[in-house]
Amino acid sequence: MIHLYPKQLIQLIEHFKKFPGVGKKSAERYAFNLLEWPEKDLNQFANQLNQLKQELKMCQECGCLEQEEGCPYCDDKKRNTQILCLVSHFKDVFAIEETHEYQGLYHVLGGLLSPLEGKGPHQLTMDKLKQRISNLGVTELIIAIDSTLEGDATALHVKKELESFEISVSRLAFGLPLGSALDYVDGGTLAKAFVGRRGF
Amino acid sequence: MIHLYPKQLIQLIEHFKKFPGVGKKSAERYAFNLLEWPEKDLNQFANQLNQLKQELKMCQECGCLEQEEGCPYCDDKKRNTQILCLVSHFKDVFAIEETHEYQGLYHVLGGLLSPLEGKGPHQLTMDKLKQRISNLGVTELIIAIDSTLEGDATALHVKKELESFEISVSRLAFGLPLGSALDYVDGGTLAKAFVGRRGF
Repeated sequence: MIHLYPKQLIQLIEHFKKFPGVGKKSAERYAFNLLEWPEKDLNQFANQLNQLKQELKMCQECGCLEQEEGCPYCDDKKRNTQILCLVSHFKDVFAIEETHEYQGLYHVLGGLLSPLEGKGPHQLTMDKLKQRISNLGVTELIIAIDSTLEGDATALHVKKELESFEISVSRLAFGLPLGSALDYVDGGTLAKAFVGRRGF
Repeated sequence: MIHLYPKQLIQLIEHFKKFPGVGKKSAERYAFNLLEWPEKDLNQFANQLNQLKQELKMCQECGCLEQEEGCPYCDDKKRNTQILCLVSHFKDVFAIEETHEYQGLYHVLGGLLSPLEGKGPHQLTMDKLKQRISNLGVTELIIAIDSTLEGDATALHVKKELESFEISVSRLAFGLPLGSALDYVDGGTLAKAFVGRRGF
């Protein structure tokens, strides 16, 4: 039925289909919804899109999203510059900050190794990471990366690449999520929780 | 965690939350996804939003979306102007056109009666409908409106309002959807299908 739509509507739908998890049906709903927005909101939304790349920048040093006053981590004198937390994407930083458990700096790797998606070691910011470890005198690297196949491969790769550095490398613990019932936890997680058990 | 985001990101998220079915989490995903779009696509998307209201117009007569060459229904000389199909929203027209079952004109009511949403008879295009019925010499009105509570109330309201006109008013049939198994069909639909049974 899409062939009956006006050209402008089809173009809008094509743009919406680029968002993660948005299929044809949702894209159509969003596009039709836009037709009911007041013009003021449409223009405001459009302006934000136009200015996005100018206004939101990544920190050249760590790869995190900058705020207006610069990088909220690299430029914060109170943070411990000897600990680095390695994440795959800058959005993971927000979830970690929310825990208030971590006071060191971050390093955004820019993705995970994934041969299927054509993502190899050269697309990651490994060279910059090594440079920063030397420059900052980092003593500890915490790998905070997804517990997926790609995440495991990437974590292993990072560990190997940093073998020549005298730093302690750790990875976030695997185990039971808080509030979970044992019989609903999958076997892999349960096995990891056994291996990682701690004195109580 | 949203309070940690840069201001621009929060504004984007607020806009995405206006789309139907989009909650906080999805809005965040979409906004983060935009950060990875090439600037060209962002500008193109923004331009479409800016021009939407100028380029996509509703037909003043029937309320359908106009194409570049005008209203694809009112301006089509081949269509039967004595039959009107009443829909609540202009997007329903596309689904009906797709069936190739209907060759008359449309009338978009602009919503359904819904006291809860503060939608009363005055927000519907009833006056325009009466005017068109007279002007076009309409003999048949087909009510193609949702089979919901609001839809039923609206259909009844329309029927009452048009009592003084000598036209035949019908409503789309209720019954089993094609391809459905009897034991999966709800009782209400089954009852309607019994009442509406036809010679075979």
